[in-house]
Order: sequence, then structure tokens, then C-alpha cells
Amino acid sequence: MQRDFPDNASRHQQRLLLGPGPSNPYPEVMEAMVRPVVGHLDPAFLAVLDETSERLRRAFRTCNALTLPVSGTGSAGMEACFVNLLEPGDTAVIGANGVFGARMCEVARRCGAEVVRVEEDWGRPLDPAALLEAQRAHPGARIVATVHAETSTGVRNDIEPLSVLQETDTLLLVDAVTSLGGIPLDVDAWGIDACYSGTQKCLGVPPGLAPLTFSERAVERVSSRDTPPQSWYLDMGLIGSYVGAERRYHHTAPISMVYALHAGLGVLLEEGLEVSWERHASVGAELHAALSDRGFTLLAQDGNRLPQLTSVSLPDGLDEAGLRRRLLHDFDIEVGAGLGDFAGRAWRIGLMGHSARRSSIVALLGALDALLS
Amino acid sequence: MQRDFPDNASRHQQRLLLGPGPSNPYPEVMEAMVRPVVGHLDPAFLAVLDETSERLRRAFRTCNALTLPVSGTGSAGMEACFVNLLEPGDTAVIGANGVFGARMCEVARRCGAEVVRVEEDWGRPLDPAALLEAQRAHPGARIVATVHAETSTGVRNDIEPLSVLQETDTLLLVDAVTSLGGIPLDVDAWGIDACYSGTQKCLGVPPGLAPLTFSERAVERVSSRDTPPQSWYLDMGLIGSYVGAERRYHHTAPISMVYALHAGLGVLLEEGLEVSWERHASVGAELHAALSDRGFTLLAQDGNRLPQLTSVSLPDGLDEAGLRRRLLHDFDIEVGAGLGDFAGRAWRIGLMGHSARRSSIVALLGALDALLS
Repeated sequence: MQRDFPDNASRHQQRLLLGPGPSNPYPEVMEAMVRPVVGHLDPAFLAVLDETSERLRRAFRTCNALTLPVSGTGSAGMEACFVNLLEPGDTAVIGANGVFGARMCEVARRCGAEVVRVEEDWGRPLDPAALLEAQRAHPGARIVATVHAETSTGVRNDIEPLSVLQETDTLLLVDAVTSLGGIPLDVDAWGIDACYSGTQKCLGVPPGLAPLTFSERAVERVSSRDTPPQSWYLDMGLIGSYVGAERRYHHTAPISMVYALHAGLGVLLEEGLEVSWERHASVGAELHAALSDRGFTLLAQDGNRLPQLTSVSLPDGLDEAGLRRRLLHDFDIEVGAGLGDFAGRAWRIGLMGHSARRSSIVALLGALDALLS
Repeated sequence: MQRDFPDNASRHQQRLLLGPGPSNPYPEVMEAMVRPVVGHLDPAFLAVLDETSERLRRAFRTCNALTLPVSGTGSAGMEACFVNLLEPGDTAVIGANGVFGARMCEVARRCGAEVVRVEEDWGRPLDPAALLEAQRAHPGARIVATVHAETSTGVRNDIEPLSVLQETDTLLLVDAVTSLGGIPLDVDAWGIDACYSGTQKCLGVPPGLAPLTFSERAVERVSSRDTPPQSWYLDMGLIGSYVGAERRYHHTAPISMVYALHAGLGVLLEEGLEVSWERHASVGAELHAALSDRGFTLLAQDGNRLPQLTSVSLPDGLDEAGLRRRLLHDFDIEVGAGLGDFAGRAWRIGLMGHSARRSSIVALLGALDALLS
């Protein structure tokens, strides 16, 4: 049939996704994507939404009532936290040891906040004491914000020591985009007031939603604002009235993506959170060892390396972009390029969610060995 | 198997979706939802994204380079337009004859704009002369904004007379959430500078993306801003650098939803825009006549009634909520409740995209007759 519109992209590609996300979705998730679409106020959908929120509470390890998927990708989750918790003139202490900490600073500035930036070298974890010291120097700070798993460097920042912020008026905001489901995260035990994630990392769901949870004190902060949040779309007061008992229409929920998240969380909780953490830890350690054996240099500091996201520099003389392209074209395996400071000299290799399997490592190493032999 | 997490929402419901959206997706769209997920920088995905943008240009009838799906629902498209085009202190002339015009006013206020609100009664179209007069009274206004198809009332507002704004420094911003694909819309011929839509109405795609297009003068306005847009997530300069030739990473595109939109636009363009408009017009007229015959009162003014979204008040003595519930529970047919001024006394019946078929009307009328006999 003659078509009068472009049609060059209809061939499907299948890839092993070992980049910084998206990871390969769980098969159960792809099945759920094609559940029949129903209305956003249909009791049949609201039951799925409620169950999704309840599953999110289990994944985040929280009892927070305000726990829901934001209708956007992980960065929308970040923005939702900042626009709701900050007002113009507020002070925000933000840890920055990678792209996503730096992004937090930019988002906070666009909220009109004064940003106190606590820096650390790329590849090294933030010092929790430095964040707490910055908060003590600015006791009126509205938030201390940090990234749990820095996707740009493969570093895990320690969150638990920041739980002492519970004794202050400063809220603790944590980016768990790459950590949720992949490494231990305990929102309530760690005193996290606002936490967001993404679906396309260790949850094994396509990108498109940002799981989010706010503590009671975060909710109080939102309701005691002098001005409404600058974003109507991400206004947690209004969204909470839809997801909560009132069921007041705000915007049309992304039905199919909620089905997908619901199913991905089902897979995760059926496996068990701790088992999933162990699986990620195990394959991560195996990959770290194998890459070191092959002359790659791990860029994240020992002791704070993420198992689900490994940043490495390549052995001397290898063309990172060319090799990455051949992995994709010859073997249908995606690994990620370096970002920011690491651009042009590093790879980021993800083993997340459904992709966090020994078979992924075997496939990657086999392809690498074939290309380098 | 014993599960330690809630699992009450696993039964699938199938509905005939005749509410204000979502509509039933085209079968081709559901097939596309399960295309294998690939990375957001994979050439295989970028080809789909480019083709999606090109298909959107054809659907919007525009040559605008900046034409893309925003990673959020229709309301995110609205917010993307306002946060990029308005700066604090700017004046915005906004037509309001329903919920979505009123929402525009609220979003503009949250951008720090002075809102000049041009009102009209619910059920009646905005007077383009009144909007133009308001612009002449505020010649420095940054934008004149109006909703093309008011989903809360079923009214079509006339856009074409506003094309004279091209001769001023004021940009024309149009909400085409419910109009794109369903009734004639001609972005370039009508001099529209910024236009957004949603996927879940006449495009026959699940909710989750907001097609958007900016004219060259809108793009210039964004690049000549004194301050960056208050939203980082919706910053069209940054998003344009990813969707455009630079391919600079901004956020992870919602891969599966882009596949879905790509497929939905394929169905639309293969049918032909004009044929789709005629199909919507034909079923809309048939429904209007059938409802009038049964004693329902059409609430949108004759001559400006949307075929794809019909607002009606019920014959005296009928309990709208009870009847709507029985349609859903006994016959798996969704129609929408009234919103705002029309809450509790009206229905909104959608015939959009794949749902815009004579078989939908037959099913609805048959169920209604059964319930009312």
C-alpha cells in the first residue's frame, strides 16, 4: 500500500539494554502494557492505582499516605519535589558529585531558591558530615537534597547518616531514580521526607512514570506554603486529591503506564525486595571483577560502588565510541556513554531490573572479547 | 502462590470508552505498545521519534521544526506552552468558557503573568472579536490563549479569526487537546504560534504524551527570554536540543508511549485527516439527533457543537450519576460526568478516535433504551 507519510521506522529492534536505563522490562510488564484501557475515574482503574501506590509503599519501605506515580519521567519526579517543597527565597542545601546532583541545583534555582552546593569529586561519595555541616550553617534551610545512586558516576551516596535531619526543621529529599529496587533503601527508617524514582531502572518498567513519596512533614510543608507551587501539573496538593479519597479530577492519569508499573512492582515484590537487592549485588560484583580483569578501571570509589550501574574507563588505546557502536550494531547490546566530566572516556554499564542477570554479563563479555580479540 | 502484597486489581475490564477521554486505542496502537524497548539515544529509537515528529507536523498541518511529544499528559503540554512563553510580569489574554480555559488562567498566574480573562457563558463559544479587542487594549500582551475544543462543554471556539495576531507582537496559543484529529485544525494557516494536544482523545492512543508545536516566533520568544523557564523538565530549549539534530540528553524519553503515538498517527494519516474529520462529524451529528429524540438537551450552542464531545443535560427526573453507573456496570460503557458548572446535571459523551464509530452509538443507545424502558 502506498503511504503518504514517513514509514521508515517500522522495523523492530531488540536490544540487550545494559546502559544507564532504560533496562529491559520484565515480560510481565509488557503483558500489562496491553491491558484494556479504561477511564481514569473508572473504579477498575482506581483499584489498580490504589494497589500501585500500596506496592510503591512496600518498595520505598514507607507508610507515607502520599505515595504515587507522577505522570512524567524521573526528572518530573525531581521537579515535583522541588516545586512543592521550595518557595522563592528558601535555602536548599544540595549535594553535587555528578550530573544529577547538579541538575537538582538547577531545578532548585528555577524555584527561586538560594542553593548551598556541597561538592565532591566525581567518582567519590558525598560526605554526609559535610551536608549536615552545611545545614547547621544554614539552620533555616528548607531542604537537604542528595542523590542516592548517582547514575552519572556509579557512586552510592550514604543516606542513613542524614536521618538526624528529622530533629531539625529541614526536610531530607532523596533522588532514588536508580536505587529503588536495586540497593537497600528505607525511606521511613532513614528519615527521608521526599523521595522520587523512575520506572526504567531497577523496577524493570519502560520509562514514563516517577514514583514519589512525601512524609507527613513534607505534606505539611506543601499545605502551609504562602504561594501555590509554580507548577500546576506537578502540584502535589491537587494530585493528592485525585489519588486520595476525594478522587477529584486533576489530569488524565497515564493508564497504560500505571498498568506497567503495577506489574513491575508485582514482579519485584514477588521476588522480594531483599532478594532483588542481593541479585543486583551479586551480578554487579561479578561484572566489576570481570571488567577489572580485562584492564578496565572502575571509576567509583571502592565501598560505594553501585552494583546496578558501573562506570569504567576503557583500557588505553580503545576508542570508546567506536566500540560502543559496534556492541550495538554487531551484537544488539547497549552500554551507556560517559556523561559530563566522564564524556568521551568512560562507559556506564547498567545491570538493572530484568537486565540484572548473569546471562547479561556473559553476553556482554562474550561480545567484548570478540570485538577486542 | 501466596503473595505478601495486594493483588486485588488483576482482573482486566474491557470498556467501551465514550467519556471525555481516554477513548479506546486503535488496535495497531496496542500492538505498538509492546515493541521491544530500546534506549532513548539508540538510532533505532531516534528514527521512530523523528518519524513521530514528522507525522505530528502532518496532523497539526505545520512546518514548524519544533514539533514533538512532551513527556506528560495534555496538561503538561499546556504548562509547557505557558512556562516557556511567559515571564513574570507578562500579560496574557485568555479566553475562558469552560474548565480548560480557566485552567489556562491558573497556569499563567503561576508563571507570574497578569491575566486578562475574556469570559463567555458555558455552552457558548468565545467571541474572537472580544479576544482581539482585549489584545488591542493590551498591545504588549505576550500571548492570546484559547481552547479550540472545550472538553468541559462540548463547544468549538473559532480560531481562524485570531490569525490576524500574526500582524502583532502577540503570540497565539491554542489548546488542541480534544480537537487534533477530530475536527479541522490548521496550525500554519491559522497563524497559531503554540499548540498542544493529548494522545487519549481523537488520536486513539492511551494517555501519557502531549504533542506540541512551536512556530519560529515562539521559538524566538523562548530563546530571547531574560530568565530561564521556571520548569527545567518542560524547558523547550533543552528538549529541542534532544529532539533536534544535537541529540543532547535531557531526560529519558517515554519510549513505549512514543511507539504508541507513532502508531496512532500512522492510523490517522493512513485514513487521511479529512476522512477522520468527516467520520467524527458524521457520528457526532447522528448522536446529537438521537439524543435530542430521546429528550436530552444539547448544551453547546448550535453551530459550534463538537462532534467528538457532546455535552447534554438529561431528561427531567433521571438520576445522572445512577444511570451513568449502571451504563458502566451493566453494559461496560463509560460516559463522562459533567464538570464544573455542569457537574451533577450533565453528561459528556465522547466519540473520539477509534471510538468514533456508528457501532459505539448503537451500543450506547441500546443500553440507554434498556435502562430507561
